[in-house]
Amino acid sequence: MTIFDEATAVTRRGEGTYDARPDPRFAMVAPGGTAPPAVNGGVLIATVLRAVLDSSAHPHPVATSATFLRVARLEPAEVQVTWLKHGKTASTAHATLVQEGEPVLDVTVTTGTVPAGPEAAAAAGPARAADPARPLRSEDLHWTDAPPPFPPIEECVDLGVWPGAVAQGGAAGFAAQIQVLFDPATTGWRRREPSGLPEMRGYFRLREEREADAYLLALAVDGLPPVAFGLGATGWAPTVQLTWHMRGVPSAGPLRVAARSRHVGGGWFDEQAEVWDAADRLVAQSTQLARVGRGPVHGPADGGRPG
Amino acid sequence: MTIFDEATAVTRRGEGTYDARPDPRFAMVAPGGTAPPAVNGGVLIATVLRAVLDSSAHPHPVATSATFLRVARLEPAEVQVTWLKHGKTASTAHATLVQEGEPVLDVTVTTGTVPAGPEAAAAAGPARAADPARPLRSEDLHWTDAPPPFPPIEECVDLGVWPGAVAQGGAAGFAAQIQVLFDPATTGWRRREPSGLPEMRGYFRLREEREADAYLLALAVDGLPPVAFGLGATGWAPTVQLTWHMRGVPSAGPLRVAARSRHVGGGWFDEQAEVWDAADRLVAQSTQLARVGRGPVHGPADGGRPG
Repeated sequence: MTIFDEATAVTRRGEGTYDARPDPRFAMVAPGGTAPPAVNGGVLIATVLRAVLDSSAHPHPVATSATFLRVARLEPAEVQVTWLKHGKTASTAHATLVQEGEPVLDVTVTTGTVPAGPEAAAAAGPARAADPARPLRSEDLHWTDAPPPFPPIEECVDLGVWPGAVAQGGAAGFAAQIQVLFDPATTGWRRREPSGLPEMRGYFRLREEREADAYLLALAVDGLPPVAFGLGATGWAPTVQLTWHMRGVPSAGPLRVAARSRHVGGGWFDEQAEVWDAADRLVAQSTQLARVGRGPVHGPADGGRPG
Repeated sequence: MTIFDEATAVTRRGEGTYDARPDPRFAMVAPGGTAPPAVNGGVLIATVLRAVLDSSAHPHPVATSATFLRVARLEPAEVQVTWLKHGKTASTAHATLVQEGEPVLDVTVTTGTVPAGPEAAAAAGPARAADPARPLRSEDLHWTDAPPPFPPIEECVDLGVWPGAVAQGGAAGFAAQIQVLFDPATTGWRRREPSGLPEMRGYFRLREEREADAYLLALAVDGLPPVAFGLGATGWAPTVQLTWHMRGVPSAGPLRVAARSRHVGGGWFDEQAEVWDAADRLVAQSTQLARVGRGPVHGPADGGRPG
């Protein structure tokens, strides 16, 4: 059992009630200690998903929408699961991570089934050609846009522990559990020379040997530093709302995570991420709304692209 | 009072309880009558938002996440609102649209404040130049990516009523209330000559004269035909989950809505939309996961771009 599996474990206590415990090994603190220590949000979402999938008739969390209400403390927590609908294709549950009677994380999950490998009916053309007598049905449709540009993994860089990924007392926390090999084009902020573009790309994996699955995807979609770092805003950037879709069961090998923002303003920024597996399949997508972290902006000297 | 305002009206009955009524004037039926008549999802979300904002300390729904559980009937409904957190910058409510004791639409809304007009501190450069002694703070940050390409409005086309936007008995329903002037590049499906690209773009407005606001944005983010139409799949495509972010108060004038998909497969497709106002500001963003509608695929002869 890996540390990640231990950190996201839940124990069924009764009908729709599970015990959990935010794990200090995935803790993060704000740079300069400006906020209380927190546990990585993706780890908390994975914990809630374990409780939901425990009683789901469908195997995959196809749509997960999470709102972060309070900072999770390193204390016992309870996950409460209520099913809103049981369907043939999809079922939906509402789940809450609760600490000391207060909701910490509010999650709605729709479970269903996603493909576990390259899809048989590749596209309109081939399917038609194989059996021209059989009209193509929309269930057969398969279409994917181009993947984001990625340098080869050997050109990517390990930044080690980054601001916001360290635990209390300077212990490595979250960053000690995962490894991100960054596209060097998105790492200027580490030298106080941000690129001026709110984007982040990297190869993502747990440091321990472990197969990628839905729980690890929940970690990966929010596993890179905030894209606002690319604009020089390296303060604590709390996620308010995160929605992610599981689109396929990931194959073995490192995951590629590409995140970018479309708009930063009014103290808010969006972050849209995609996770591609080693077989070049889009396996997860996410969008989140976060607060721009308070604090000074470091560079860029050239001002970036004004809005 | 416009038909849209009437159709989304709620009446407070008690603490956190509101009466509503899905309006036949925004009804839609599946092509070929393969599903019961439904009310447009954006209208239902706007209805729920009215109930949430009625008791919100903050003016704007900055993050709304909605899961569609059942088809809303044209009968009385109740909106139940529970506040999960009241914060200085943002507050979060959980709300449910209920009919006959069953949840129809499950929504989590975070309210806050978004800019109402061009932002003062435009970007790093100017802000720094204005007062070089004052270090730029991340709250001042403003950055926007390039808008999607749009033809001039006079080159766009009104398709009238499209499949899926008609009400029972052939009445115009939803499509009689709104006008979309489509980018002609995204209208081939109407002639059974789909472009082979899952995208849709159009200028969007109510047919009645009415200012754009949060409620109209809730309609606009899901106001175009499903992007799967662009692949020739013009069957009923039910939205399972839709999340949208309000990023600015829209200025007067037509809204531009651009939607596209990144991946269609396993019977699911994502649809990501942006709404830009006439002053060229990104005012809303959405992402949804929907089922590919059942039924035959019409064209494209060239097979589109295989995934």
